[in-house]
Amino acid sequence: MRISALAAEAGLPLATVKFYLREGLLHPGVATSATQASYDASHVRRLRLIRALTGAVGLSVQQARTILGLVDDPGDDLYATLGRAVSALPPAVHEASGDDPYPRARAALEALGQVYDPGFVAVAQLESALAAAEAAGVPISDERLLEYGRHLREIAAFDLERMPPEPHAAVEYTVLGTALYEPVLLALRRLAHQDVAARRELGG
Amino acid sequence: MRISALAAEAGLPLATVKFYLREGLLHPGVATSATQASYDASHVRRLRLIRALTGAVGLSVQQARTILGLVDDPGDDLYATLGRAVSALPPAVHEASGDDPYPRARAALEALGQVYDPGFVAVAQLESALAAAEAAGVPISDERLLEYGRHLREIAAFDLERMPPEPHAAVEYTVLGTALYEPVLLALRRLAHQDVAARRELGG
Repeated sequence: MRISALAAEAGLPLATVKFYLREGLLHPGVATSATQASYDASHVRRLRLIRALTGAVGLSVQQARTILGLVDDPGDDLYATLGRAVSALPPAVHEASGDDPYPRARAALEALGQVYDPGFVAVAQLESALAAAEAAGVPISDERLLEYGRHLREIAAFDLERMPPEPHAAVEYTVLGTALYEPVLLALRRLAHQDVAARRELGG
Repeated sequence: MRISALAAEAGLPLATVKFYLREGLLHPGVATSATQASYDASHVRRLRLIRALTGAVGLSVQQARTILGLVDDPGDDLYATLGRAVSALPPAVHEASGDDPYPRARAALEALGQVYDPGFVAVAQLESALAAAEAAGVPISDERLLEYGRHLREIAAFDLERMPPEPHAAVEYTVLGTALYEPVLLALRRLAHQDVAARRELGG
């Protein structure tokens, strides 16, 4: 298809598609003449990914470029690449320094018995979340940590079982599955609270 | 204690404490002279709540006022009050209109067999999250919905079992437990992914 048809198919303005081409976020089409090129389903798919990253996920073009680079070139160490890709997603957290920069997160992960890379941004994210709860006077108890951790570990195992084996697809799946399913999880928790509360009220 | 000691105890500038007093977010102290008043632990606690809402939770003073109003006056229908309080929390979502404004959320909640109030903001939030996943080419499958839903319902039941029976405290618990524990849940999921992936890599 021509670039105008590609833009229409992706639901994007033509100027936006041309911008992504110029910036190298979208791979070139096959030249069919000096001034025209032909695009296929791989371009539609890529535009859908770019659109998700810069739209729903809320990344800047520069941040999206980082993630697209990891999708395009996952390298030999897929595990490290997946960690880098997830670390490029919101929320942005301040990295701390010092001997023991993430004491709450470390204690929590030890209590859960989980393997973790202290350089993974989610460790700083957990520290910040635990510190905020503590400052508000509602610290996460060990009982709550173990309960939440158990369920999230089962969710994570479910997610990973469905990860495509092909590395490019695995990075894409991990990025989109992390960023786009998180809001689903939070909405489901709020709705589950309502469901449980309603049943108690009706039952009581 | 005097207002200066209260500010120090709460870790807030004196001007901020005076502002909350003027705005009626913080209840007055007991007058000890024409120009002085005495404050107690209830004021420290209230400031901690205000600080959490306007800080970690990211509400404006006006939004915090709405929630504090529900904490102060939970009314007779605690269930409805809890729903209103949670609906005042981020994320802000567009309310839709029409005959069937939330088709994806409705289908998901029916599949989960959950009771819900269509006016509860989390319904619009779920619709928006499901639509974003769909637009990105990674719609939530029924299998995934049931798996996530099952775990979040167990988490919700755990949360509600620990809700204080006293209505003022129940609203406060629900607001803080929703807003401040959500970032903990998301960080734990990302770290659980890392743990599960690391164990597979080590095992394989």
